[in-house]
Amino acid sequence: MERHRTLKIYGLTEPEIAKTLTGLTRSKENVVLESCDHFPESHITIGLRRDDEPSAMSLLDGAETEIRALMGPCVFATGEQRMEEVLGETLRKRHLTISVAESCTGGLIGHLLTNVPGSSDYFLGGMIAYSNESKTGLLGVSSETLETHGAVSDPTVQEMAKGVRERLDSDIGLSVSGIAGPEGGTIEKPVGTVHIGLAANDKVLSGKYRFQGTREEIKLNTAMMALDWARRYLHEDPFLSGI
Amino acid sequence: MERHRTLKIYGLTEPEIAKTLTGLTRSKENVVLESCDHFPESHITIGLRRDDEPSAMSLLDGAETEIRALMGPCVFATGEQRMEEVLGETLRKRHLTISVAESCTGGLIGHLLTNVPGSSDYFLGGMIAYSNESKTGLLGVSSETLETHGAVSDPTVQEMAKGVRERLDSDIGLSVSGIAGPEGGTIEKPVGTVHIGLAANDKVLSGKYRFQGTREEIKLNTAMMALDWARRYLHEDPFLSGI
Repeated sequence: MERHRTLKIYGLTEPEIAKTLTGLTRSKENVVLESCDHFPESHITIGLRRDDEPSAMSLLDGAETEIRALMGPCVFATGEQRMEEVLGETLRKRHLTISVAESCTGGLIGHLLTNVPGSSDYFLGGMIAYSNESKTGLLGVSSETLETHGAVSDPTVQEMAKGVRERLDSDIGLSVSGIAGPEGGTIEKPVGTVHIGLAANDKVLSGKYRFQGTREEIKLNTAMMALDWARRYLHEDPFLSGI
Repeated sequence: MERHRTLKIYGLTEPEIAKTLTGLTRSKENVVLESCDHFPESHITIGLRRDDEPSAMSLLDGAETEIRALMGPCVFATGEQRMEEVLGETLRKRHLTISVAESCTGGLIGHLLTNVPGSSDYFLGGMIAYSNESKTGLLGVSSETLETHGAVSDPTVQEMAKGVRERLDSDIGLSVSGIAGPEGGTIEKPVGTVHIGLAANDKVLSGKYRFQGTREEIKLNTAMMALDWARRYLHEDPFLSGI
């Protein structure tokens, strides 16, 4: 029988999670909640105080429902499921396809998506547009946009997302451009500055983030956030409608 | 002072390494050789029997020279250096650029290349051509080639390598296409069948491999082999001239 359950969280810091869980922990006599950092995600484990708890399942279900109510769509999975599997499952169910235009992640988003067996059903491919020339040549980003706003900007990732969606004829086009470091940062756009773009139907969304860490950590957080954008978009998360 | 040294090997199995080292181990009284699997590579550690060995450096140098003589270009690095760093260093030194056309690796080769800081100096980008349509549309692989030989074939990876090299105007175009599994294998092309292509100057090379393991292991071995092809090509390794 299930004695504990893991909820996977993305988009909240450890202190935010701890604060959110405080009230819940106090109100749950038979349940133990533990949160733990699994960069770039966090895991909350719901455990039971008594090993022989007769109403184990309903206690776990109850705690999961309350955590989901508090953390909303930041809970992206339960158990072992990975972000790219959650997204893949949704794409498959809804018969939708996705393509990616990657700058600073260099192919990591495609790599994660294709770690999932059967991903060729919904992942069509994409471009690794590392240089400015490839952003223009492969994706149709206008030189004017690059000159005026720079490669790491909302207009650029918007054009990248539209470009890859059109060229691969996918339902969703996902794009990222950023400064993974350790070199290349400026005062205006320091290392860790990342823009994410998403094109679907007649919509093009984009947003800016500032990630911390090593080059590889910034790449991983960027890829994860891009996948999370697609997941949230498909779940009609209001988080994205404000962007 | 240096007391031990690690040599990194790719392209030889553990039994092949053990067999090659046998004679050497017998002839070296003051040196201990240990080989260890670090999938998908192998590491040979040269250690000293005596902690206070006065001629430590010359013993390590001597053993390294002998191992290199036996294993040739299968020794790709010493110490902590990774395959993508070794390749990157050579590309940078020789002012050459590279681009990638990835099918079964889904972006992993680009991801590895861009883990190296400053890789934008030599890595221009590429295409993740996961579907047949993207191989044709993005890379110019002919429909006839795909129909006659299939997506996982020498002619396809050759056209992919040429296509990405032309479109990104890079010195080297690197391509892979394979069956990462667990589904998709046939009797003729079982899971783990992988073709690698390389286009440079007026040459186009391609070769076939059969990797074992999980989907993620097959992807990693494919990416590693592709990077190793580029490394060996730049070192004018006869290994590639026979292909």
